[in-house]
Amino acid sequence: MRKIAITGIGHTVFGNLSDFDLVDIMAYASLDAMEDAGILDKRDIIEQVIVSNMGAGILNHQTGIASSLVSRLGLEPAMAELVENGPASGGSAIKIGFMAIASGFVDVVMVTGGEVMRGVTGWEATDFVATLLHPEAEYNYGLTLPAFGGMYTRMYMEKYGLTEKDLALIAVKDHENGSKNPYAHVKVPCTLEGIFESPDADVVNNPIAEPLRLYGMCPVSDGAASIIMCAADSPKMKYFTQKAPVYIVGVGSATDTHCIHQRENPLELKAVRKSAEMAFKMAGLNPGDISFAELHDAFVILEVAISEEIGFFNRGKAKEAIRRGETRINGRLPLNTSGGLKAKGHPLGATGVSQVHELVKQLRGEAEEGRQVKNPKHGLAVNFGGFGNNVVTIICSKG
Amino acid sequence: MRKIAITGIGHTVFGNLSDFDLVDIMAYASLDAMEDAGILDKRDIIEQVIVSNMGAGILNHQTGIASSLVSRLGLEPAMAELVENGPASGGSAIKIGFMAIASGFVDVVMVTGGEVMRGVTGWEATDFVATLLHPEAEYNYGLTLPAFGGMYTRMYMEKYGLTEKDLALIAVKDHENGSKNPYAHVKVPCTLEGIFESPDADVVNNPIAEPLRLYGMCPVSDGAASIIMCAADSPKMKYFTQKAPVYIVGVGSATDTHCIHQRENPLELKAVRKSAEMAFKMAGLNPGDISFAELHDAFVILEVAISEEIGFFNRGKAKEAIRRGETRINGRLPLNTSGGLKAKGHPLGATGVSQVHELVKQLRGEAEEGRQVKNPKHGLAVNFGGFGNNVVTIICSKG
Repeated sequence: MRKIAITGIGHTVFGNLSDFDLVDIMAYASLDAMEDAGILDKRDIIEQVIVSNMGAGILNHQTGIASSLVSRLGLEPAMAELVENGPASGGSAIKIGFMAIASGFVDVVMVTGGEVMRGVTGWEATDFVATLLHPEAEYNYGLTLPAFGGMYTRMYMEKYGLTEKDLALIAVKDHENGSKNPYAHVKVPCTLEGIFESPDADVVNNPIAEPLRLYGMCPVSDGAASIIMCAADSPKMKYFTQKAPVYIVGVGSATDTHCIHQRENPLELKAVRKSAEMAFKMAGLNPGDISFAELHDAFVILEVAISEEIGFFNRGKAKEAIRRGETRINGRLPLNTSGGLKAKGHPLGATGVSQVHELVKQLRGEAEEGRQVKNPKHGLAVNFGGFGNNVVTIICSKG
Repeated sequence: MRKIAITGIGHTVFGNLSDFDLVDIMAYASLDAMEDAGILDKRDIIEQVIVSNMGAGILNHQTGIASSLVSRLGLEPAMAELVENGPASGGSAIKIGFMAIASGFVDVVMVTGGEVMRGVTGWEATDFVATLLHPEAEYNYGLTLPAFGGMYTRMYMEKYGLTEKDLALIAVKDHENGSKNPYAHVKVPCTLEGIFESPDADVVNNPIAEPLRLYGMCPVSDGAASIIMCAADSPKMKYFTQKAPVYIVGVGSATDTHCIHQRENPLELKAVRKSAEMAFKMAGLNPGDISFAELHDAFVILEVAISEEIGFFNRGKAKEAIRRGETRINGRLPLNTSGGLKAKGHPLGATGVSQVHELVKQLRGEAEEGRQVKNPKHGLAVNFGGFGNNVVTIICSKG
């Protein structure tokens, strides 16, 4: 398969951007990636645009936004499609961009993901996300993603002895990393004392979906991220000025049952494991080769569960690494160096692209002071769709 | 690039299916394709599912339906994504399925497109389709697709001397073909007299968007279509029992300005021409090699405009071929043998897949009596997104 380089990365701040048009913020991230790639004046080398987004129809009353973005950027006649896979839309879009280049169809692809979801109220946002559940077997009964997150967290805690303090340690780590990431939605560090003993502890510990509380889940964020990819064997590589190439070396994705109740063991995240196996196989790497990872912690429990499912830790053992600080920025295996979904935020369609943006930034050695992983070689991202029903894993390596 | 065969095709009837769930009708079309392919009991050879759909979010309050379809069919852990490109979502999904196989990532892909859009009233349906226009420069001013269709029709008539009778001749041909297609939404033939002189002429000729009337545009339809593709060099070809292989030999897509007012000549459909040029180049074919074609006649004028833009006729000359009956089923170049969008119907996400379904059916020699093209070798489909802002062309050939 063709070797594929990431030649440019772009990002907006994540947060409340509800005054902005969805396509405009995607255009901003795209221009940021073109500038990083050094092709602002040569943007016509982009042959295919893939947009990742989940809610343009429901939240923004727009469709066909891939064409809209192309036209906003003056990229016509570049080919353009939107790819949707719930909260894993970004990972899926990168996978499909990878396929487009690997097929020999095109040499240069831009993948831009974005979501503007804070224009709706809290209840509507939860309802919107719940549209990815089974319409008759789950959604109609009022099930929501936080409900599944709470159930999963409780089951995991009971089975493996994970404590609320362990979960809080993940939040503390994520907020610490996020506080140093200029793109993060939540830039305020937090401490264990702040979570459990502050005068606001009642507010902080108000249950959202038992045992999930404020520090157990991600905020609702707007934002966009973009990457530009080029076939390493293409003559078009000469147009890119970015001198620290990062390569996509592994891509995998897999589905699991749409309904959670159909899973023999709801704690097992089969699609996570299979997508990671596929990516590791393509890359010729093992979990032990990975220097750092972005894991889809929409609920902090997912950082734990995913890290075990893909083989970073044995089952039930991640908590020990957390307690020893191994997943912090200077630990053995830093996780969610960007702040993760927990602190950086989770604009659904942007998240998978933002994760790979972070892999590239770290592998280039360009992360901000205090959150740069030391000499990383391989980074991995898991983008989790539904409640684990459609998962994408991507591995990037330094050139 | 790898040679890719279409090994199975499936279809629901097009019409009013608003009592059915969107994913259920997509599952029906998928099962129909699996049955045609002979893999109902070996469906686990499907490695990637691509769903094409435009309105699940707005019309059906569902997202993540690619995972939903996979699970409804028991295809886990097959990879799955939804591809959206307005009314050209189906063509885009086939293009991306083609890339997935050509890249060597997978050997077997199922592409299923569907739309359930009659659950909303006429006004809401028009509003829904208008979401693909520019949100600030077009949509906010109340512009709709029929408005653009009417404007385009009037401009074309004035420039090239096309008459209302010429347009009616296309409707008559499409209804004639549709009346013989069991999947067609509108199975009632019509005549010139019926259109212009019937006692109902006032109703029939009530303007929708001058000069567009009832017979100038497609109905609002529900429906789904599916195709299964396999790399011709794959050992998995042995599982398919369908003995009349049809190959995808050309694929092209291109974008034009999102806003119509930005086009120097609004009659020119640049994305149509470029996507066709790309597909012809890949196929090593010329317009004169094509035996028959499905052209996206959401408004009948588009059959005329597209047929000229891709080189079947010189500009302004299609009307002469129409008057001579050359585009009828036994003519020199049959167009919209399925009945086209005009009579078969236009469930947006299904249309591009349905067009290729028709190419395969004709190339196999399996079309119903009275609408089978004589010994066709190459068929072409143009799937038109937005008002020509994102167009996909696909060419299929007999093995």
